[in-house]
Amino acid sequence: MVHRMPAERTRERTAPVSAARRRRLRADQARQLADLLRRQVLSGTFPGGVLPLEDTLGADFRVSRNTVRQALDLLRAEGLVERQPGVGTVVVCEKYAHGLDRLQGLAETLREHGAVSNVVRTAGPVPAPAPVAGRLRVPEHSDVLYIERLRLLNGLPLSLDLTYVPMDIGAELIGCDLENTDVFRLIETLTGTRLGTADITLEAVNADAHSAAVLQAPRGAALLMLERLTHLCDGRPVDLEFIRFRGDRISMSGLLHRSV
Amino acid sequence: MVHRMPAERTRERTAPVSAARRRRLRADQARQLADLLRRQVLSGTFPGGVLPLEDTLGADFRVSRNTVRQALDLLRAEGLVERQPGVGTVVVCEKYAHGLDRLQGLAETLREHGAVSNVVRTAGPVPAPAPVAGRLRVPEHSDVLYIERLRLLNGLPLSLDLTYVPMDIGAELIGCDLENTDVFRLIETLTGTRLGTADITLEAVNADAHSAAVLQAPRGAALLMLERLTHLCDGRPVDLEFIRFRGDRISMSGLLHRSV
Repeated sequence: MVHRMPAERTRERTAPVSAARRRRLRADQARQLADLLRRQVLSGTFPGGVLPLEDTLGADFRVSRNTVRQALDLLRAEGLVERQPGVGTVVVCEKYAHGLDRLQGLAETLREHGAVSNVVRTAGPVPAPAPVAGRLRVPEHSDVLYIERLRLLNGLPLSLDLTYVPMDIGAELIGCDLENTDVFRLIETLTGTRLGTADITLEAVNADAHSAAVLQAPRGAALLMLERLTHLCDGRPVDLEFIRFRGDRISMSGLLHRSV
Repeated sequence: MVHRMPAERTRERTAPVSAARRRRLRADQARQLADLLRRQVLSGTFPGGVLPLEDTLGADFRVSRNTVRQALDLLRAEGLVERQPGVGTVVVCEKYAHGLDRLQGLAETLREHGAVSNVVRTAGPVPAPAPVAGRLRVPEHSDVLYIERLRLLNGLPLSLDLTYVPMDIGAELIGCDLENTDVFRLIETLTGTRLGTADITLEAVNADAHSAAVLQAPRGAALLMLERLTHLCDGRPVDLEFIRFRGDRISMSGLLHRSV
């Protein structure tokens, strides 16, 4: 007997099955399969970036060819794979893992994947709005350094970063090589102090038209939004960032513990 | 002299400014403002969930009324706020913080916000596909328990969870109250062993049509996708999950350290 994924088993128990229900079951199975294939795509399981044939995938996962096609359609819609005539389904977009275990700048994190460069869109003093002043512990409306950077890996846009830094550090930072160096590294060099911890919040948001254009992503594309307040190891907050990662290019990985 | 946000300062230096450039600068400023307001919305800063008037926001953040409007439009598009005639701009969607610091089930995490209930869409044995078998360390195509749940907080859809559990635990799990209890808690009770760690990967993806319908979200809505492999404290992997959180309802927060 050939085993099947659970949605199909359910189908057998509930015949006769309407066309609408069959479509729903196939969609459920396609999602299950897409999630398993996504992991394999991200971890570079497929030699040469070419996925197995649809029939092979169907046999491996014990689902119908239609379900395989629908699963591949989901991954294609996410921008992870593409169908190439005469080749099959190929991985088109490498997704880079940003560590949740250790506080690192983007260039540090992606060192093995290539060079990170930054297009500095803005860099200059700005009076700190109340929510910035409060978190950086500077007087409201006193100047802080505001930096806006489009960050690229090997020329490909990865993220749009909005950064606020207290002016005593910012005044020196503004003269540094922001195009090619992580702000984290520059802050550690300028202050002679190691960074300590960062409070982070991660969200998924749809790209507005303007952010999408800057990131060269489709309007409405899913972005991984990171808000990060970074402190020196003495506890002083020195770097407030709002980072929009392209969802199709960056994932965040880490290890959670049951008890802390 | 009234200080302004940096994009406007740039504008002063580069006059004459074309209409297209002015629109770009205003979009940049609207994004800056939206990011600051988003934080305030999420942390419940505004009394009664009502945002200050547009003029007040403009004065507080030293931007034009048009920029304020555009920033509020961005937050409205994210489903965070709404304009109500006679009231102003109000927070419409509470976003719940899921901790990145500690491994917790959804009901544990959101205890103070209300009751988590689960619609069990599927629960039954399924032959483990290779990527599942490998991660759960069971023989390929041996049965594992597959559970698919729509998870709701106070009746509102939060996430769609696909779960694989080894059959020795799963055989007992299937008879438990999956509607009202976290799988984490059930596994600890059934095995008499505490959970230890989990490997997680977070991504932002656009909802496909079917997942969007299940989550009652717009098609293409940004989802926070969590893959999580959870181990007992003796290191045995016991729970592989693929979780689609509605991006407008869940954020993930934690603390990162520079050195580990």
